[in-house]
Amino acid sequence: MRDFSNDHSALALNTATLGHNVDGHGAGWPVERVIDACAERGFGGIVFWRREIGRRGVEIGDRSRAAGLTVAGLCRAPFLAGPLALPTRSAIMDDFRASIDMAAELGAPVLTIVAGGVESGTRGVAESLKRVADRVAEAAPYAATHKVKLALEPLHPVYGGDRSCLVTMRDAIDLCEAIGHANVGVAVDVYHVWWDTSLGVELQRAGAGRILGYHLCDWLAETRDVLVDRGMMGDGVADLKGIRAAVETAGYQGLCEVEIFSAGNWWKRDPADALDACVERFRTVC
Amino acid sequence: MRDFSNDHSALALNTATLGHNVDGHGAGWPVERVIDACAERGFGGIVFWRREIGRRGVEIGDRSRAAGLTVAGLCRAPFLAGPLALPTRSAIMDDFRASIDMAAELGAPVLTIVAGGVESGTRGVAESLKRVADRVAEAAPYAATHKVKLALEPLHPVYGGDRSCLVTMRDAIDLCEAIGHANVGVAVDVYHVWWDTSLGVELQRAGAGRILGYHLCDWLAETRDVLVDRGMMGDGVADLKGIRAAVETAGYQGLCEVEIFSAGNWWKRDPADALDACVERFRTVC
Repeated sequence: MRDFSNDHSALALNTATLGHNVDGHGAGWPVERVIDACAERGFGGIVFWRREIGRRGVEIGDRSRAAGLTVAGLCRAPFLAGPLALPTRSAIMDDFRASIDMAAELGAPVLTIVAGGVESGTRGVAESLKRVADRVAEAAPYAATHKVKLALEPLHPVYGGDRSCLVTMRDAIDLCEAIGHANVGVAVDVYHVWWDTSLGVELQRAGAGRILGYHLCDWLAETRDVLVDRGMMGDGVADLKGIRAAVETAGYQGLCEVEIFSAGNWWKRDPADALDACVERFRTVC
Repeated sequence: MRDFSNDHSALALNTATLGHNVDGHGAGWPVERVIDACAERGFGGIVFWRREIGRRGVEIGDRSRAAGLTVAGLCRAPFLAGPLALPTRSAIMDDFRASIDMAAELGAPVLTIVAGGVESGTRGVAESLKRVADRVAEAAPYAATHKVKLALEPLHPVYGGDRSCLVTMRDAIDLCEAIGHANVGVAVDVYHVWWDTSLGVELQRAGAGRILGYHLCDWLAETRDVLVDRGMMGDGVADLKGIRAAVETAGYQGLCEVEIFSAGNWWKRDPADALDACVERFRTVC
């Protein structure tokens, strides 16, 4: 297992940690200021959200790399199923391709996929998972030609109804196998998987080549809001070292991306302090 | 699979459906009125909460049976671990035995166990699960002499931090095997397991003798509060028939207990209407 106690070059910032994924949250720093603040602190990489990028993908990607940061990924493809997805399959697929285009412009090697919830007129997750598999399979060759890998991210089961019919690593790896395209893998997020005692076994089944990202935060024992009350590493009950051991034992050696949705706490603080805390916690508790 | 379309004799009421598990909720019907209302409607059974019973266990049990209802269970043993548990092991075990005594007085064959959350000073669920196993193993012989079975109920992973380190059927059955006492089994609650595509396989592993209860409600796609916003059967996205098929294929043929925590909807309605809805939905969508 890698030793981060004196080295945080594997640390990446997901800009959601500064509230950049939701309108009206965070301090509203411009992208350039975020890039510079990460570079000054020795972060190794950065992950953006589409709403920050717009038509400036090439420029922002180049700016990040010039500052010494790896652009590790882009959040995210549109919901592919369920009540929050666009109304038609063709609209979903158009937006899916647009998100792949943006990742390519940015030079981001990975696009995160959040599956979307249970499809109207169906019950349980099985039928919705089939539709998600079908849509990802269709987009995978297009993404491959753009040098963008697709990372299926199982979300916590609390989102199963509306945001993600994909809620376990087991199902995510089954989806990868059903899709059968070398360009499709999984993202492992502490928030979503910390409770799962089968995680290590499932990641072994995935294999190193299919693990496309590792996301850090913590699960607060008393969570006030399941969307925007994630904890800073060390403030919750997730076994961060145990989870990273499982991820690394399965072969992953890439960046570790801090992604904390925290409307009531970290998004209200000075972003400089939040970034400093990420570095300190990464070295001490991750 | 049993046909309930013209027969709801397998229907049981968990009195939480009328708000009887939380102070200040529901219409506040006396226990006797709840018993009579269930009996009038042809319910087969009833499950109480400790706060309703107090020292009247024998009386309420007899009253229920005289009305034609099976007393199917008692909710619940105290949290056995985590931040909401009593402060010492001996206090927890004393209260655990008191809950077994109450189930015995009531003539309830099953006491539900909610594990409690992650123990202070530990991370992840593994260590807490061991402590829960240790405490259940200690109580199992005492429960057996009182003719009370102990049903480990895995809760939804959203409760993993504070209310239940036990969040999957897989872990619940592993706990049963670790404890190795014929008196210990599991309860299957739709709210907690609906998202789990491995449920059927795990219930097969449990076997009929270990499935001690089946709880009905629904998962609302847009859940406003994870504690008290459960849906009436048919109003959500759970595959109720699929889950019951899995439960019955594994051998369970017992009562199906409606347990709906719904502060914003069903607890505000006339209990008579809520009970009528339970009967109608049980016959049509369960």
